Amino acid sequence: MNGKKGSSIRIDIGLPSSAVPRETARKSGSGEGDEAITIPLRKWMMEVWQFAREDTNRVTFSLKVGLACLLVSLLILLRAPYQVFGANIIWSILTVAIMFEYTVGATFNRGFNRALGSLLAGVFAVVVIQVAMSSGHVAEPYVIGLSIFLVGSITSFMKLWPSLVPYEYGFRVILFTYCLIIVSGYRMGNPIRTAMDRLYSIAIGAIVAVLVNVLIFPIWAGEQLHRELVGHFDSVADSLEECVKKYLSDDGSDHPEFSKTVMDDFQDEPAFRKCRSTLNSSAKLDSLANSAKWEPPHGRFMQMFYPWAEYVKVGAVLRHCAYEVMALHGCLHSEIQAPYNLRYTFRTEILDATNQAAELLRSLAKDLSNMKHSLHTSLLKRVHASTERLQRSIDLHSYLLTLSHDVCDCSTKPPAKLSHVSSLNGTDADGKKAEAETYHETMKKQQRRLHSWPSREVDDFEEDMSGESIPRMRALESTAALSLATFTSLLIEFVARLDHLVEAADELAKLAKFKQEIAC
Amino acid sequence: MNGKKGSSIRIDIGLPSSAVPRETARKSGSGEGDEAITIPLRKWMMEVWQFAREDTNRVTFSLKVGLACLLVSLLILLRAPYQVFGANIIWSILTVAIMFEYTVGATFNRGFNRALGSLLAGVFAVVVIQVAMSSGHVAEPYVIGLSIFLVGSITSFMKLWPSLVPYEYGFRVILFTYCLIIVSGYRMGNPIRTAMDRLYSIAIGAIVAVLVNVLIFPIWAGEQLHRELVGHFDSVADSLEECVKKYLSDDGSDHPEFSKTVMDDFQDEPAFRKCRSTLNSSAKLDSLANSAKWEPPHGRFMQMFYPWAEYVKVGAVLRHCAYEVMALHGCLHSEIQAPYNLRYTFRTEILDATNQAAELLRSLAKDLSNMKHSLHTSLLKRVHASTERLQRSIDLHSYLLTLSHDVCDCSTKPPAKLSHVSSLNGTDADGKKAEAETYHETMKKQQRRLHSWPSREVDDFEEDMSGESIPRMRALESTAALSLATFTSLLIEFVARLDHLVEAADELAKLAKFKQEIAC
Repeated sequence: MNGKKGSSIRIDIGLPSSAVPRETARKSGSGEGDEAITIPLRKWMMEVWQFAREDTNRVTFSLKVGLACLLVSLLILLRAPYQVFGANIIWSILTVAIMFEYTVGATFNRGFNRALGSLLAGVFAVVVIQVAMSSGHVAEPYVIGLSIFLVGSITSFMKLWPSLVPYEYGFRVILFTYCLIIVSGYRMGNPIRTAMDRLYSIAIGAIVAVLVNVLIFPIWAGEQLHRELVGHFDSVADSLEECVKKYLSDDGSDHPEFSKTVMDDFQDEPAFRKCRSTLNSSAKLDSLANSAKWEPPHGRFMQMFYPWAEYVKVGAVLRHCAYEVMALHGCLHSEIQAPYNLRYTFRTEILDATNQAAELLRSLAKDLSNMKHSLHTSLLKRVHASTERLQRSIDLHSYLLTLSHDVCDCSTKPPAKLSHVSSLNGTDADGKKAEAETYHETMKKQQRRLHSWPSREVDDFEEDMSGESIPRMRALESTAALSLATFTSLLIEFVARLDHLVEAADELAKLAKFKQEIAC
Repeated sequence: MNGKKGSSIRIDIGLPSSAVPRETARKSGSGEGDEAITIPLRKWMMEVWQFAREDTNRVTFSLKVGLACLLVSLLILLRAPYQVFGANIIWSILTVAIMFEYTVGATFNRGFNRALGSLLAGVFAVVVIQVAMSSGHVAEPYVIGLSIFLVGSITSFMKLWPSLVPYEYGFRVILFTYCLIIVSGYRMGNPIRTAMDRLYSIAIGAIVAVLVNVLIFPIWAGEQLHRELVGHFDSVADSLEECVKKYLSDDGSDHPEFSKTVMDDFQDEPAFRKCRSTLNSSAKLDSLANSAKWEPPHGRFMQMFYPWAEYVKVGAVLRHCAYEVMALHGCLHSEIQAPYNLRYTFRTEILDATNQAAELLRSLAKDLSNMKHSLHTSLLKRVHASTERLQRSIDLHSYLLTLSHDVCDCSTKPPAKLSHVSSLNGTDADGKKAEAETYHETMKKQQRRLHSWPSREVDDFEEDMSGESIPRMRALESTAALSLATFTSLLIEFVARLDHLVEAADELAKLAKFKQEIAC
């Protein structure tokens, strides 16, 4: 561990402080390493401080573990309790160290696993020892050996069974408690006494762990789940806005290669990274909801049988919205791109729809966060109205998407609603023609880039299709223009899914009895 | 646990065998429950048998755990070793039960955690005890208590640090080993002796666990990782085909509601469900690769420093392909759908591109599975050629996508390549017109369905926009037609990403020194 930490610090030095080596070099002989050590140490302390400040629960949790261990140790360190409980009390330390979990629910859950596991193992061990003892002195070790083998095999097989996987820890407890009781009972005699001693020292450890966990600054899994879900709403809204903003501002000139971007992990898109973590959140939400079920009513969640499972459902619907954001993001990093000015044409409508959708998401997040239930009718209306406008705009300008056909003389088509397009080009009357020209120019400029797809085996294709290169170019142009249609379709689909999200959020609000609020 | 199993069986009865109750009812009095118990018992046995047969490693693992426990127990059950090792040997049972993991690599990893944790805790405990003893009789318990508190807090804080999370188990081991040694040392005297006794009994347990795990039918994490990745290639290929097939065969009439489909978890799309598990596989691949790093060269992977990390990278690129499949799937379940005959128009090209892409994926999977490295030039060429055909076809027929404009009299446009469209409609000369008619008819038929979007607040909209209902309808029609463009764009983007997948697979093949094979 120490080695690991040291090496990570050393990497940290190299990056930001290029001026440091020179300064230390000047000092040369005396205290050469001192400065070099002090600076990373201070940096490291700052990092730890930041980490602790980010979520003070981390510090609370650490101190609580220390306290629980100390309390259990007192049972041995002080003379009076030691004389009462004896050396077996050592098992309560083990129990605290293994059972103490981050949240109250998880601790209860683990405690339940440990208690039930120990109990089952204890009962089974006592039964087997009685059988073994009555089977005679010679057969006894064989019976015990066989039973250990069977318990080991059966518990290991059962913990692989999909529906029993969450109780994996319980099976481990059964296995080692059984072995410990039966083996030490065999050697030390009086197995029932051994079992009882061990069970009550485990119980003491469990009680200490639970009391410290619940009574001193409890960290509730329910609260964590609640916050987690609110955070996911926000991160989907953020990444939607980020993605669309990037799509509209991107002029396509400085696109890094896709595979490089994948490996770099999209460093310049923090919101997207957060959104991707939303996609991988199902396991975390499940486990938090699972823990929250074990918790008694507390804080803001005073209702009995609070619908924690509903949080998981809302999370699932939100994830389905996030998949659309992933697809939008795929469009953004696609190798075939609509030319910049075509994207600019629909800029207002796309931005409007995006902002409305993000606002709806944030409003849902805020309501959830405040445990209020308001009707989102007006916001939904506005989102849908802005999507309608986007659809209609795409519809009216759809000839732009198929413009590259010289076969079709479409100039009879009137430029129905091109206010911002014409203002872009600076012409008034023949706006569409100018647009078409700019479009073709851009395509020519992007020619190199378009030809980078397919990025491999291009030469082979060139040979194969040298005769057809012009229609091929045209097909690429058309596909490039249609990529805008793809982007907007995905955006519209995202909005369509918001309906279901609102529905799921309403259902949650109803079941969790959030405060009703009249919509403005 | 028993209760749990029982209830799951009871649910199983209800579903398939509706004839059973009548039969048992006839028997009434005598042995009423017998039949009812026998049948679910047999069913349950069959399920367990199936589960075991699916992956015989599960049985192997279970028997190995049983064996390891038995071997360690022998040290106590037999008189001779017990007289040598004494009661401390009980710790080796605990070690086996806690350390024995499914794969060799994971066991090594856990063993390393346990060994290093125990060692650090032991050393630290001995140092603290020396300090405490030299600080005088009064201060001793305070020093020990403080040290326990500090160790508990610091290890708990450290295991929350993101880069140290994988070593969580190691920190737990440090904590409880430290407490056990220092506390029992305080009460029983001679802490160094206690520490040493405990360390060697832990070492014995660890050695038994490792030997049984490695020597008897070892389950290698590397092998699992290899197979897992191959499986993911296949599942992406399967779900791509399934999705496209469904998209082309779906006439849009019997669409279940989206939210219902989300909740049903897409029961009728097994391949999609598999693909979705591919998306959530990053954690599993990471942990398998992490375990595999601990394994010595073995079986097919005899190379030193086998590039297991490269598997994770290929998995990441494959996941980026799978995101496109998710988007395609989103299109399939989108509420705004291209009319059936429009989808039918591009049927041949879409199917061709899909089949070629799936074939490429399967070929990659096969090569990976056989650890061969062949150039996929010809397959890539064919995939790209088929995508080109699709692009060109979309390009030539793109007027179909924007057909609903009555303002533009596009009938001057010649039906450039409409062989299968006209054969579909049974007309020869005026194929495009006929197509346009059918298109409008279908739109009319789908009118009700299109209006189901937005599914909420529709009435409010109706009031707001009663004057504009015709342009709105048109916008929806246009968006519906463009949804086909979306689908094909996503398909093309999927193919574009295959390039990067082939690159990543080539890189893996190079680093892992797969057998070179000349492409056919």
